[in-house]
Amino acid sequence: MDVTVILVSPRNPLNIGAAARAMSNFGFFDLRLVHAYRVALDEARSGVNADRVLTEAREFDSVADAIADCHLVVGTSGLGPRETLQPFYGLEAGGRKIKRVKGRVAILFGSEKFGLSNDDMSHCHWLLRIPTREEHRSMNLGQAVAVTLYELIRTGQVELVSAPESRAASVGAQDRVGDYLLDALTESGYVKPPVDISTTLKLRRLIRRMKMSEKDAGMWQGMLRQIIWRLKQ
Amino acid sequence: MDVTVILVSPRNPLNIGAAARAMSNFGFFDLRLVHAYRVALDEARSGVNADRVLTEAREFDSVADAIADCHLVVGTSGLGPRETLQPFYGLEAGGRKIKRVKGRVAILFGSEKFGLSNDDMSHCHWLLRIPTREEHRSMNLGQAVAVTLYELIRTGQVELVSAPESRAASVGAQDRVGDYLLDALTESGYVKPPVDISTTLKLRRLIRRMKMSEKDAGMWQGMLRQIIWRLKQ
Repeated sequence: MDVTVILVSPRNPLNIGAAARAMSNFGFFDLRLVHAYRVALDEARSGVNADRVLTEAREFDSVADAIADCHLVVGTSGLGPRETLQPFYGLEAGGRKIKRVKGRVAILFGSEKFGLSNDDMSHCHWLLRIPTREEHRSMNLGQAVAVTLYELIRTGQVELVSAPESRAASVGAQDRVGDYLLDALTESGYVKPPVDISTTLKLRRLIRRMKMSEKDAGMWQGMLRQIIWRLKQ
Repeated sequence: MDVTVILVSPRNPLNIGAAARAMSNFGFFDLRLVHAYRVALDEARSGVNADRVLTEAREFDSVADAIADCHLVVGTSGLGPRETLQPFYGLEAGGRKIKRVKGRVAILFGSEKFGLSNDDMSHCHWLLRIPTREEHRSMNLGQAVAVTLYELIRTGQVELVSAPESRAASVGAQDRVGDYLLDALTESGYVKPPVDISTTLKLRRLIRRMKMSEKDAGMWQGMLRQIIWRLKQ
């Protein structure tokens, strides 16, 4: 997936920097700017997070020049379906289309204030819409770039990164915790002997719901043994 | 899905504002701040995008107070699996877990510089990791909030928002365009009569690949008729 992010008429160096940072976070490196305030890019480059993406960013005088080597051009817009003449896809459906393309895909983001112009949009094969609320559609530029790129890299990730200490306690270890608990409850007077079966079952279900790890079961046994010892003094 | 966003020790008013804006974009309204610089929240509230989320944001002195009414507490972290003692899920898997919860879910985001502390993390049932590149894990705070909330609202959206004028041209209309094109090519000398079958087939496949809409087919016919008329002068 060769994706180029094109910012058209960005004004705020912080937003250019934020867009570049999200690109680097998600593994995209080709940033192009059209009609950027010269000073905005310079300021962004001097920011703390300036990195490879900003250093290598290229500036163009027109959208046509910026997209000349791309095979698919997608515009992002907060407009509604009735407000444009071009095909419109939600981010998930659009993301799937982008991932299928062989060749470079340009994704255009408009200025902070006005978004893409009709002229900018006419260069696009279709438009992409991040599913924001009807009542508050317009996103911050850096956030829109981050969310769009996240959608492109989202699938195919190894999802469960780690669940350490998740080795479950054996039922025997769990039941020992249950036994100690019953002892402690009896010693403390919470439960009066003879212990009826419904109390035993209630406690066992309680213990099962804890989904204890092996290590936690050991910890519980130690804590309860100490409590019982003290109660018996 | 009742989700509370908790920013722990945020320092930059722009980031607080950006987090609030993403929340509003994606339909989440409960923002809480722990150990925020008083001045940061005030400044964020005076920003242009201040809205319901920022106005109603609440401040707390401790993580424990901020999460007291929540049923699940999830921390976000750029740490790797070997750097923490808690269970760790990628954003997609974690998002599915969050969506299944009955009751309020708190999602904690740490400070811009240091992320969540070990003490903050000990309040969490598990940790969430946005799948950033190994070499550049740390995200901008506002962007991390935006991406996380997007994942939570992502599914269940109507994906194809609109594809106006997508009514495909009939094969007859497409073939009329092909006929006109062949006429124009012949008149212009690009194709020499008698036209061989391979040229005809080549043109037909070209026309099919255009996947013309009804309206576009009409437009092509008009344009080509005009060209032919002029070529015959």
